Amino acid sequence: MARYCFCLLVKPDRMAEYAGRHRAVWPEMRQALTDTGWRNYSLFLRDDGLLIGYVEADDLDAAQAAMARTEVNARWQAEMAEFFTGLDGRGPDEGFQLLTEVFHLEGK
Amino acid sequence: MARYCFCLLVKPDRMAEYAGRHRAVWPEMRQALTDTGWRNYSLFLRDDGLLIGYVEADDLDAAQAAMARTEVNARWQAEMAEFFTGLDGRGPDEGFQLLTEVFHLEGK
Repeated sequence: MARYCFCLLVKPDRMAEYAGRHRAVWPEMRQALTDTGWRNYSLFLRDDGLLIGYVEADDLDAAQAAMARTEVNARWQAEMAEFFTGLDGRGPDEGFQLLTEVFHLEGK
Repeated sequence: MARYCFCLLVKPDRMAEYAGRHRAVWPEMRQALTDTGWRNYSLFLRDDGLLIGYVEADDLDAAQAAMARTEVNARWQAEMAEFFTGLDGRGPDEGFQLLTEVFHLEGK
């Protein structure tokens, strides 16, 4: 299992709606994420629109590719695209920027 | 257990050294974090110096307060302070900005 962190930018005037949509993610979208190996997946929003994703997966490339093959992901990402800035025509699931893990503590 | 995400800014010209220091965090600092309830704690660095922290805890305020009472934390934070920008005189453990969780999927 590995840990991943990525960034996206939500349009500041769409942040409340974006958060609202994520309180009601379609059950079939949640199921597809679970089925394709997305684990302990959270999204966090900063008050300027910076969106941080944290997810654990055996292999995020494989989990992304498996999601990209689902019909529900195409529908979800099409609806989400308008909330973001800086995607340059890519989907939100393709345009994100991965960060580098520099520290980890398991704890107990 | 709750999940927390926070941001800090590392000076771009100190990023490599910051990452290096975090490959060799003092064992007593790791032990203090564990003892005070910091769990599954990761730091991620973006190429412009944006530092993202992700941590799980029963109560982050309590975990921060407990760390602040340890001697090793004072020594560690004093050495780390010079790596950051925008702290306005606070320690790195006091000056961070918490984000709001807008989505969570446990997965399997």
